[in-house]
This record gives sequence, C-alpha cells and structure tokens, in this order.
Amino acid sequence: MSIIVQKFGGSSVADAESIKRVAKRIVETRKRGDDVVVVVSAMGDTTDELLDLAHAVVPALPAEGRELDMLLTAGERISMALLAMAIKSQGADAVSFTGSQAGMLTDDKHGAARIVSVTPGRVRQALDQGQIAIVQGFAGFNKVTGDITTLGRGGSDTSAVALAAALDADVCEIYTDVDGVFTADPRVVPKARKIGRITSEEMLELAAGGAKVLHNRSVEYARRHGVTLHVRSSFTSDDGTIVYDPERAGSTMEEPMIVGVAHDLSEAKVTVVGVPDVPGTAARIFTIVAEAGANVDMIVQNVSEAATGRTDISFTLPKQEAGSVLQALDSHKADVGFASLQHDDQIGKLALVGAGMRTNAGVSARLFKALADAGINIEMISTSEIRISVVTRADQLVDAVRVVHSAFELDGDQDAVVHGGTGR
Amino acid sequence: MSIIVQKFGGSSVADAESIKRVAKRIVETRKRGDDVVVVVSAMGDTTDELLDLAHAVVPALPAEGRELDMLLTAGERISMALLAMAIKSQGADAVSFTGSQAGMLTDDKHGAARIVSVTPGRVRQALDQGQIAIVQGFAGFNKVTGDITTLGRGGSDTSAVALAAALDADVCEIYTDVDGVFTADPRVVPKARKIGRITSEEMLELAAGGAKVLHNRSVEYARRHGVTLHVRSSFTSDDGTIVYDPERAGSTMEEPMIVGVAHDLSEAKVTVVGVPDVPGTAARIFTIVAEAGANVDMIVQNVSEAATGRTDISFTLPKQEAGSVLQALDSHKADVGFASLQHDDQIGKLALVGAGMRTNAGVSARLFKALADAGINIEMISTSEIRISVVTRADQLVDAVRVVHSAFELDGDQDAVVHGGTGR
Repeated sequence: MSIIVQKFGGSSVADAESIKRVAKRIVETRKRGDDVVVVVSAMGDTTDELLDLAHAVVPALPAEGRELDMLLTAGERISMALLAMAIKSQGADAVSFTGSQAGMLTDDKHGAARIVSVTPGRVRQALDQGQIAIVQGFAGFNKVTGDITTLGRGGSDTSAVALAAALDADVCEIYTDVDGVFTADPRVVPKARKIGRITSEEMLELAAGGAKVLHNRSVEYARRHGVTLHVRSSFTSDDGTIVYDPERAGSTMEEPMIVGVAHDLSEAKVTVVGVPDVPGTAARIFTIVAEAGANVDMIVQNVSEAATGRTDISFTLPKQEAGSVLQALDSHKADVGFASLQHDDQIGKLALVGAGMRTNAGVSARLFKALADAGINIEMISTSEIRISVVTRADQLVDAVRVVHSAFELDGDQDAVVHGGTGR
Repeated sequence: MSIIVQKFGGSSVADAESIKRVAKRIVETRKRGDDVVVVVSAMGDTTDELLDLAHAVVPALPAEGRELDMLLTAGERISMALLAMAIKSQGADAVSFTGSQAGMLTDDKHGAARIVSVTPGRVRQALDQGQIAIVQGFAGFNKVTGDITTLGRGGSDTSAVALAAALDADVCEIYTDVDGVFTADPRVVPKARKIGRITSEEMLELAAGGAKVLHNRSVEYARRHGVTLHVRSSFTSDDGTIVYDPERAGSTMEEPMIVGVAHDLSEAKVTVVGVPDVPGTAARIFTIVAEAGANVDMIVQNVSEAATGRTDISFTLPKQEAGSVLQALDSHKADVGFASLQHDDQIGKLALVGAGMRTNAGVSARLFKALADAGINIEMISTSEIRISVVTRADQLVDAVRVVHSAFELDGDQDAVVHGGTGR
C-alpha cells in the first residue's frame, strides 16, 4: 500500500459544490486502496477577503506578523474542516489537522516561515486507522514561541511536498486549474503541448522563466528530498505533468532535449553604465542590490572597451523592486565609480529550457535565427546548463514565444484547452 | 494593579468600524492602569455563515462534532486577530491567544465541551509584559485527544468568566448591545429600570424566567467561583448591572427585595392526567422525560382527589421539546398507569424575582391580586426561595408583565432606551 499526498488549491475548493467534487475525487483515490493525505488551501478569495478586512481595521497594515498569521490561517481552517465533513458524508472516514497538529514545525519568521522539521505522527496514526488525513496548507507552528506561523507565498504547495517527504509518499499530486505544465503558456501559444515528464531542474528553470504553475520553493523542496510531483487538473482525470528527480529515476536519455518555452513580462532591466573594469566592482554592485532586497534574475556584463577600461553591467529584476535598487545604487555612485544608471521596464523575457543545452551550439543558433527571421531584436542573452534566456522588447514577446515554440517543433496537433488563470 | 476581563459579543465586533471602536475602549481601560484580558466572539453573523457553508457541503449535517468545532472556531480566530491588530495600531501592545494557548482545557464533548481546568500561563506572561491579552471565546482544547473543542451555547461568556476566575480578576465585564439587566424587558415594559446590583442567584432566576441577557451557564460558573460580573453596553460608557456573590459582598439588607420581572413565551405546558397517587410515580414520569432529553422548568402537582386516588402533574418545557416528550410518555402509558396527556403551547410564563420572597406572604398576595385586577387568569404557580413563577395565556403575558411591574413599584421615571436585540 502506498501513500499519496494530494494538494488542492483555492480555486479547486472555491465553493460548496467544488468541495463536494474534490471530496468525491479523494474518496475514489482512497477506494483504490492507497493511503491518502490531503493538503488544502483556503477557499477561493478567502485570503484576499481576510486581508481586506485587516486593511479596513488597520489601514497601515504591516506586511507580516504574528496576528496576521493568526488571521490568515482561519481561511485554511475553514476549507479543511468542510472538506473533512464532505468526505465523511460520502462514506469514507476523514480527520482534519492544523499545521501544528500535523507537525509542520517552522522557525518564527511570521509571514514567511521556513520549515524546520516535519513530525506527522498524528497523520500517520490517522492513516493507520484507515482515515483520510486532511492537513491545513500554508500553516506552521513554532515550538519555541508556541505561535502559529505561515509559510508565505506558495506555502500550501510547500506544505504538501514537505509532508510527502516526511511520509515518504510515492507521489505528491498538485491539483490546479490547468492540465499540467506546458511547452509554453497556452494563452500565448495555442498549439502548446502538455509536458508528460520533466526533471525538477528543468521545472525550476521554466518557473524562473515565467511559467507560474508551481512555486519554485516547492519544486526546490521536492528536488532536495527526492519527492516526485504530479501537476494535474482538478477538473479532469487526465494525467498531468510528472516532475521527477533524474538521479532517482535513472537515465534521461529518452527525454526530449527541449521541454518548453517560458515567458515573463513582470521584470525590468537596470543597466549600470561605465563601470570601472577592475576586480571586485561587480561584487560591490550586487552587494548593494542584495541589501536593497532585490531578487535579480539575469545578469549580463558586456565586454570591456579596452580604450576606456570601463564596461556596462545589466540585470533584470521584478519591476516593483527597481525603484529602491536604483536609489541604493545612486547613493553609492561615487564610491563604485560608475557613470550613470539606465532603467527600462518595457522588456520581455523568454527562456528556452531543456537538458544539455549549452553543450549543443545548434540550439542557441536555432533560437537566435528564429527570432531574427521574425524581426525581433535580442537585447540581452544569458545561458545556464539547461536554459537560454533572452530579453526582447515587451511588445514583441508574444511573437517571440510563438516563433521559438514552432522553431523547436514543440507545437502540438491541436489547440490546448485553457481553463482560466492559475490558482494560488 | 487589578485585572479586568472584558468580553465582547459578536454584535460588538460586527465590522471593521466596530472593532476599531472596541479597540479604543480597551486601550482606554489599559491606560487607566489595569491589566486587561479581552475575550471575543466571532464577528456578527460569521458563525451562521460558517454553518450555512457546512450545510451546503453536507445537507444532513450532524449537530456537533470534531470537524464542526474546527470550522466554527475559525470565526473567533478572525475577530481576535483583527482586534489585536486594531489595538496595536492604536499604540498599545496586544497579543491574541487561541483557547488552547490560553489554557482553556475541556473534556472531549465536541459542540458542548465542559471546562476541566484553566491554566492561563501565557495570558499571565503577556500581562506581566504589559500586553493586552486577547483570548478566543467559545474555544477549548482537549489535552487527551489533542483536539479543539467548543463550549456550546453561551460559550464566550463562559470563557470570559472562567478566565476571570483563573486569573482572580477583580471583575468580568460582559459587553452587550443592551445597557444592563432590567426590572423587565424594556420592549414590553417601557418604564423598566436598569438594575444596579443583583445577586447571582437572582440573576439565575431572572434568566430561568426568560431574561436572556446572560447565559445561565456563565452566571452559574461565576457564582461557583465568586466572580463579579458587570453586564454593560458597548455603545455607552454608563455603568450597567453588577452581578455579585452576596456571601463575598456581605449583607444584602440594603438591596431592594424585588429585583425584576422576567417573561418567556418559548415554553409549552404538558399535563399528565390521572396519575396514580402512589410513591414513585412522579420519579417514574420525570425519568422518562429526562431520557427524552427535555429541559423541564416548572413542575406542579395538584392535590390528589381522595375519591379516585389520582392526581394531575403539569410541567413546562421548551416548545420544540414537547413532541418527543409526549411520544416518550405515551409509549409508557400502560406501565405508568396515567389516563391521558394534554399539551398546550399557548402559554406565557412570568417570574417575579427577589430575595426572601417565600418568607414574605405579602409578596405572592400582591402578585396574584395585581393579575386578578387586570382580569388575567393564573394557570400554574410555582415558587422558590427567590422566585415566584406563574403561567398565563400567551396573549395575556405582556399585560401581566406590565401590571406586575407597576404593582411592585419597579417603574422608572422615564422610558428605557432600547438598542435592539440581544447579542449571542
């Protein structure tokens, strides 16, 4: 008998009817003979409604804190209790557990707690008694303070993966409102295909390139603990996308080299112009950037001009972080010794992801040619072991994704079905 | 420095504005130098909304259970966190505690848990650090199962009184949407006066007679543990009604003998006709009634008719319990040996409450005369140490309350202000 962890996001349990449908699905899984642990998010817009209430009470609401965690975890508490009731009314036995009861022990960083250890004794006991265990997503518990914490963004996915790891589950199924991970965003590339299997590393690169189906933190946790993920739709019974660890699964030789094209319009580009080309300058710049709290993605340093001994360094980061970074850099203009700063928030980022990419020069050549044929200018290039990222004008990004998707023969035979936005 | 426990019901924290107003009141109390512990109910209709959701998911919802407690406690969790945030934003320090964190330990009877012990170590610690402690009303924790429980009806009042007892608080203030306890329902008797001080025993009798400001369970807990209650309005700063323990407060000689008139239209009368007047018959009847789960209030046995050796026994009970009691009695008709059953749901109950009532024959005479003068027939009479209850026709009850209120000179000089219904 194997253990299956199933995680349902807010859009899968948005109302009473959805909860009943999800309960039916869980009961069917249980009837097939597996032990089932379910991790559930708050219903639909509950979290936003609770935040609205908090803002109405405290207009200058701190972004995180003990009381906010206390408030927000009420959302998952409601959905988990309702789901347990629904399952019981359908003839199976179920019991719901808070993060604390499920042993999700974290540090004390409210609003963005890190998991310290997972001790799901009560969950195991429930499984041993033939019960379906429903666990509150997003919520943790700090043993030192005795306080409730939350895991922050992507928290419920991380709860599910952490439980799967601690229980040595066979698979962690992430139910969402899309059919799986696609070779490109189906809303941009109608002929995008669902990816059957993808390594966790490739999934991380796709996510960094803008594919938002899974939160990176949960994929990283899965990779580190060897948890196999199955991203699938809660609206169909079709298989979705398996995200696996190649070292545990054996050779990747039979996998297609290119797995997909991701895109992202949420970033801006900052260029530090006229940087002295001496050792330590880049380190100095990115220390300042990091202290400003920015999450930098691509970094490109152009070749130095021999005549001036100066170079330009460009990087991309989320648009809303650009302001504070520009301010921080400007205040160090003299001691770093650069000439000026440029800021561009009209960029688009495209990432081609697949194994063994850098060792195959033909891949980047084909990518650049496809973009050139479509008249799309490349403004930045950055490559990793399994990803090639390029920056284009924002208004050319959609065209770029389509031509690259075709150039790498990723187009399917028919249009993908799009169910709507992605859940949280 | 003294400790004050303040309990706010759902109508006092119905929306963001109410929460801010309540927070202001709490901060003012703290600024006067007292340690403040606050017990809070769920916002406005939250509990009903959660119950509606549960019924939508499970139409045949069990009336109580582990998952229902998990669900409903989300309501108090939301209000307590918002209230703590509101207080902090007004410059005082506050921290919210779940029932479990506040040490409200109960048995495992979900939906109607009894308090086993109260160990508010974290609450004390918060007070020692100058913080205002906000405690989740209604919620408890069973240490054996590790599960969350709820205290059932009147639960938040009981939470507050139990905390006040465990912390040896000077007073437990129960904030509600009425100004205090009145000599009669102000909606029935406009000249009803607010009672300044009343003993817990008298309060219990008033409540049993239909005055619904405080739940009996919390008054009983207060009496048993010597907690002084102060029932007051959350909309004014006027003093309300002090409910005290006369043995701790000293002589009651200076108190007025009659404290008020309560009335109740929610009961029905059942008469068991032609009962054999032999020892053990009454016990037999009320064992059957108790096994049917009924909460009997008045019991009257008429004088036996010598000729037949038979008598009639009448009792009152909540209307909705009459059906199952009649059925249970009917199925034992032969072995109890009574002749027939009568059921009357058009009765009204009036109770006159005050100390030393039975020893003063003039009180009952004055009561009966007032009713007779108004042409109101008395159908049942029952007396206790501090209460005289009579049953009338339902459609005469309002008149009865008014004439009795006047006859005992309880009328005030001006009409009472009525704010609306009572909170839960």
